[in-house]
Amino acid sequence: MKKDFVDTQDFTKEELIDLVDLGLLIKENIKAGFPLNVLYHKTLGMIFEQSSTRTRVSFETAMTQLGGHAQYLAPGQIQLGKHESLYDTAKVLSRLVDILMARVQKHESIASLAKNATVPVINGMSDYNHPTQELGDITTIYEHMPKGKKFEDLKIVFVGDATQVCASLGMVVTHLGGNFVHFGPKGFQLNDHFRKICEENCKKSGGSFLVTDDESALKDADFIYTDVWYGLYESELPEEERKKIFYPKYQVNMDMLKKCSPHVKFMHCLPATRGEEVTDEVMDSEYSIAFDEAENRLTAMRALLVYFMGVEDETVAICKKNLERK
Amino acid sequence: MKKDFVDTQDFTKEELIDLVDLGLLIKENIKAGFPLNVLYHKTLGMIFEQSSTRTRVSFETAMTQLGGHAQYLAPGQIQLGKHESLYDTAKVLSRLVDILMARVQKHESIASLAKNATVPVINGMSDYNHPTQELGDITTIYEHMPKGKKFEDLKIVFVGDATQVCASLGMVVTHLGGNFVHFGPKGFQLNDHFRKICEENCKKSGGSFLVTDDESALKDADFIYTDVWYGLYESELPEEERKKIFYPKYQVNMDMLKKCSPHVKFMHCLPATRGEEVTDEVMDSEYSIAFDEAENRLTAMRALLVYFMGVEDETVAICKKNLERK
Amino acid sequence: MKKDFVDTQDFTKEELIDLVDLGLLIKENIKAGFPLNVLYHKTLGMIFEQSSTRTRVSFETAMTQLGGHAQYLAPGQIQLGKHESLYDTAKVLSRLVDILMARVQKHESIASLAKNATVPVINGMSDYNHPTQELGDITTIYEHMPKGKKFEDLKIVFVGDATQVCASLGMVVTHLGGNFVHFGPKGFQLNDHFRKICEENCKKSGGSFLVTDDESALKDADFIYTDVWYGLYESELPEEERKKIFYPKYQVNMDMLKKCSPHVKFMHCLPATRGEEVTDEVMDSEYSIAFDEAENRLTAMRALLVYFMGVEDETVAICKKNLERK
Repeated sequence: MKKDFVDTQDFTKEELIDLVDLGLLIKENIKAGFPLNVLYHKTLGMIFEQSSTRTRVSFETAMTQLGGHAQYLAPGQIQLGKHESLYDTAKVLSRLVDILMARVQKHESIASLAKNATVPVINGMSDYNHPTQELGDITTIYEHMPKGKKFEDLKIVFVGDATQVCASLGMVVTHLGGNFVHFGPKGFQLNDHFRKICEENCKKSGGSFLVTDDESALKDADFIYTDVWYGLYESELPEEERKKIFYPKYQVNMDMLKKCSPHVKFMHCLPATRGEEVTDEVMDSEYSIAFDEAENRLTAMRALLVYFMGVEDETVAICKKNLERK
Repeated sequence: MKKDFVDTQDFTKEELIDLVDLGLLIKENIKAGFPLNVLYHKTLGMIFEQSSTRTRVSFETAMTQLGGHAQYLAPGQIQLGKHESLYDTAKVLSRLVDILMARVQKHESIASLAKNATVPVINGMSDYNHPTQELGDITTIYEHMPKGKKFEDLKIVFVGDATQVCASLGMVVTHLGGNFVHFGPKGFQLNDHFRKICEENCKKSGGSFLVTDDESALKDADFIYTDVWYGLYESELPEEERKKIFYPKYQVNMDMLKKCSPHVKFMHCLPATRGEEVTDEVMDSEYSIAFDEAENRLTAMRALLVYFMGVEDETVAICKKNLERK
Repeated sequence: MKKDFVDTQDFTKEELIDLVDLGLLIKENIKAGFPLNVLYHKTLGMIFEQSSTRTRVSFETAMTQLGGHAQYLAPGQIQLGKHESLYDTAKVLSRLVDILMARVQKHESIASLAKNATVPVINGMSDYNHPTQELGDITTIYEHMPKGKKFEDLKIVFVGDATQVCASLGMVVTHLGGNFVHFGPKGFQLNDHFRKICEENCKKSGGSFLVTDDESALKDADFIYTDVWYGLYESELPEEERKKIFYPKYQVNMDMLKKCSPHVKFMHCLPATRGEEVTDEVMDSEYSIAFDEAENRLTAMRALLVYFMGVEDETVAICKKNLERK
């Protein structure tokens, strides 16, 4: 039975942590200069209904580093459900490539692709969630969390608009038992659907979940995360109106960081609009781990490709042997 | 002397059947999990004057599976005969890549490219013909023909508009000695040029050829093939006018299949407009081999790449050795 | 410390000649059929703010031939300094690929990319210069210069508009001690900035430099080079006005070649507008080495990729060993 990566909610805490560990092991192997060939001559089909340089570059590099190749189907080159049924597209592409990823306009497209394809399907972001980002972010948090603290003790605050990155972070943090806060203005806070998922997650995992516009929520935050002030998928407000809503209260600047834990780290899914949701000073400070985070998209993708292509055990064995040799 | 694949009429029956056999051998080798490296570090340049996801994905996967790489030159990125002479483009690209394929607006472009390039050139469809489709289709017919029957005994009926896929199927079937029928409305039937080629083919091969709008031609058909109701290259009629011409008589539905042989198979070059030239019921039935056919585009392309790059003998030897090992 | 290839003026004569030699050695190795894997699983990120089939195809083939992969970021897919700061783009891409090349609108973009990226950056042409073309051209000149002559004895004449290819040729020829002439009409001659660089070069190298509209400058020319009659980056004059300026005096035709050395060779960076800056007769004559020159873009790029990825010594050793084996 093939598996897909559409939503982290479909996986157990243990499975997600295994994926993080797998990613970190492959990362160490590659940084040590050992090539991998576990996806030798395999093809990843990448469908982008929306442009995303970062996601595309990361997936394409990941395939090259694993011995395979990624095909880039740019926006306009393939239109899911337009010229032919999504069912037919899924069936045909499954005959021509070994695994698929898609960045879609609507979450139902990625769900349908996963349902009908006979090869594994990875969600490269929809209007609903962004699970590869989630996995990369969790990896980054594991790498940068204060020594002595456990994930369950961390306070992770997302500041600003309830984008799908915000929703995704909330879901994965609460799923893994961490403490998540969405600090954002009323009208731009996580909706009931996501609140319910996060609350259910907390019941099972022992994590905590809060949505608030009270800045006292920043206290003791270990990680501050933000995203641009306008959702990619929503009807955008004019720049001036957006600013009125989020500025200055929700801008991540040095004053805000002072309200957090002294060892707070700043994260951003990028690209950032410097001077809007985050200042240059924060982006370029020692607090910022945004570029490490960007690199861990690649870390996460390598793990996902290995896992969903069914070569996890082989890969772990090779990496461990390589690293012992070092 | 380099060879090109512009028209199956340039090849003997034996050469075409060798290509089918080569494709099937490589397919078996790859399905058995043995990687091939016969085009190690070689580059296929893919020129698309028109977009075609299926053709592009198949060729790109084929090159990866053979150890090489395919470069995708999307519509607009290269314009044959616009900024520079087609002669110069052919000469320059021949210095930079190892083999070329092109999907062109006009057949004269592929002919000129083949004439002037010093590397092999493969026709990825023109306004005249679609020879890689032909080779994939013949492969599919060989795989699915009734046990005990020879190709020469098969009746293959194309239903609908005289697209270049229709013309191509007619040419290759009659070339190989099969029995071909174009069942389509007057005004949308194969033209004199193609009729003459097919009739000449039959004289040499012993095949038969018929163009008709009489549905009694469906009797005993082993394969029913259709394509969309509007040629990619012609001035398109409005949807409603097309429908009036082809519907309901030329729609492939379960009633039509009942008029054929009981073991009839349904083929389509895809993408299909479900509900127009073919019903959901037929597409999703056990009669349909349209997805196997799509996969055999890849089968055909691997054979073409190996053959025209001059590594056929080496490839056959490796595959046979691999498969004996199994 | 990582190095970048933004301007040949940043390198010594010896370094540039080493790059030519490295390119020729790799070329010989590949023509002899020995695969190289020195960039195994490495990724080149290719940023094109302007479309350029030749540059893209050459770099992509080079990476394949060296065992790596090139990612094509087409115009529009990435916009330097638009959605995010060029600083952030440089930092993020440095985490995701191993080396970058860019064809940019403005030279300051390539300079900024080189400054901020932590991986090597190669200039694939700007509005200021075209150093990969320079290296390929020097390679071609070395391959085709008259027997018994040294580079320092060569007379190389660029005919026509002072494009960045003209400027680049002037800079590299004078840098290496050759004799350079720009034969072009007043108002379309190399500007003071480039004249000064070339004159400084000559002082150090012993070369010579002349800008003139006097056709006696063609006398004894070993190489005649031309480019199209309108700069890619300038506001284009209408075709008729351009013709009035350059035609017939600056058209490279057989009459012009007769004014040069009897062994003169014709070069063009391509694409050519046949019938404008060069006649069919010249392009198709035995004097023309324009297609060899096009191939040597690939020769130069392989050398640059190997050198800036820091695998020069290893590559030289492998090639020499391979060629001894032959």
